[in-house]
Amino acid sequence: MTTSYALLIEYDGRGFVGWQLQANGLSIQKVVEDAAAHLAQGAPVACAVAGRTDAGVHAEGQVAMIALPGGLAPERVRDALNFYMKPHAVVVREAQPAPDGWHPRFRALRRRYRYVILNRRARPALEMGRVWHLPHDLDAGLMAEGARHLLGRHDFTSFRAASCQAKSPIRTLDRLDVWRDGTHVVVEAEARSFLHHQVRNMVGTLKLVGEGTWAPSRVADALAARARSAAGPTAPPDGLTFLAVDYATPIFAAGYSCGSGKAEGA
Amino acid sequence: MTTSYALLIEYDGRGFVGWQLQANGLSIQKVVEDAAAHLAQGAPVACAVAGRTDAGVHAEGQVAMIALPGGLAPERVRDALNFYMKPHAVVVREAQPAPDGWHPRFRALRRRYRYVILNRRARPALEMGRVWHLPHDLDAGLMAEGARHLLGRHDFTSFRAASCQAKSPIRTLDRLDVWRDGTHVVVEAEARSFLHHQVRNMVGTLKLVGEGTWAPSRVADALAARARSAAGPTAPPDGLTFLAVDYATPIFAAGYSCGSGKAEGA
Repeated sequence: MTTSYALLIEYDGRGFVGWQLQANGLSIQKVVEDAAAHLAQGAPVACAVAGRTDAGVHAEGQVAMIALPGGLAPERVRDALNFYMKPHAVVVREAQPAPDGWHPRFRALRRRYRYVILNRRARPALEMGRVWHLPHDLDAGLMAEGARHLLGRHDFTSFRAASCQAKSPIRTLDRLDVWRDGTHVVVEAEARSFLHHQVRNMVGTLKLVGEGTWAPSRVADALAARARSAAGPTAPPDGLTFLAVDYATPIFAAGYSCGSGKAEGA
Repeated sequence: MTTSYALLIEYDGRGFVGWQLQANGLSIQKVVEDAAAHLAQGAPVACAVAGRTDAGVHAEGQVAMIALPGGLAPERVRDALNFYMKPHAVVVREAQPAPDGWHPRFRALRRRYRYVILNRRARPALEMGRVWHLPHDLDAGLMAEGARHLLGRHDFTSFRAASCQAKSPIRTLDRLDVWRDGTHVVVEAEARSFLHHQVRNMVGTLKLVGEGTWAPSRVADALAARARSAAGPTAPPDGLTFLAVDYATPIFAAGYSCGSGKAEGA
């Protein structure tokens, strides 16, 4: 008899090859699965996940699922995983019993990402590895104007990595907000799902608008071109954080919910 | 002929022995002075500072002064120092000409510190090294009540490190606010100057109040006792950030000003 648990996971993506198991380095999945094996008498435990983040991308609210033998209390699963995952910068914020038939990826209704640009002359010290440093003034208002051209249901081929394995390039972008908060320019994106590198490619394109290289309307042209070469470069992973996933029935007490907007700050 | 510059400095205190030069490891002062020597044809440059932070303590708005030969533009000083300080987590946010007779330490009217506690069951991942992790529920309201007993002009012997070199233990504490922001408990302190470890000893004492070990009024008893043993333990450096210094005439365009309160968030 096994019990399935939903896990709300936070991690600092620096030093990891990304979420997914890879032969060439340590993944977050490997850290979680190795810790989980301690709770399964050493038997391998597979971990399903809502969003496979890339190397260097962070998470405040990644959602995963594991099945473990016996009926351990969720709090004990959380504490034991956190103990075995030391000293890695990966923690389970909350564990809950997984509802019947639930799956972190296939049942996700909405995913939310935040991208933070540090827009000042001096490189980051306190936020090294957590922001994209752009020393020249960005106009966040123009970036927000450019962003609006991407809202809705579109073929996002122009913003899709060559390596993207999704069957269709059609996605519905529900929210793409851009605002300035002091020396930070913050971009938040929400959609049921995203293509590989979609957020970073959108941010890399909006950067061209913010610095004045592109008029905001050129974002619409880039989208319509349906060619990766028509859009801007891929923004670095450092500034990207996977914030939250929504399900039809909320699973966790803690964590961001999608759709609550800018009020939460950066 | 030399020109004096006021520097607004940000750093991540992890991995440093503190601000001050020491034989047993790398200090932030050493990083700044070594970079400054590049701008002085290799001659040694001494750096005066507003507050000598301890090992592991961070800064958003440390203020320092250096004198350099020639009349370099302040922006060039900032950029050159940031170049030579790579890859250390130390940057000059802003450089300005130092006013005549100004000194970052002796002319300081007010200093401001922030201490951040992560108050949740899971240890920090994204904020490792930047917060004090306390897994058991703290009552921030009780902590704020305890903090009020410390406001004003007092003999702070109970909150002073044995190593403190100040001539007098009398200080005037202008502000000591405590509030909860989600899973964070934030403490902000303002005074013209602080004794060595004063902020960390106040936070370590307020922690006893927040967890219910002490009644808030016992903070007043600890203060009155004028004995270090009467107060709580020293909180770890990780959660502490030196935010800002005020002078009679504002020196920098950027940076926090003291006295503006909670609105800036954590």
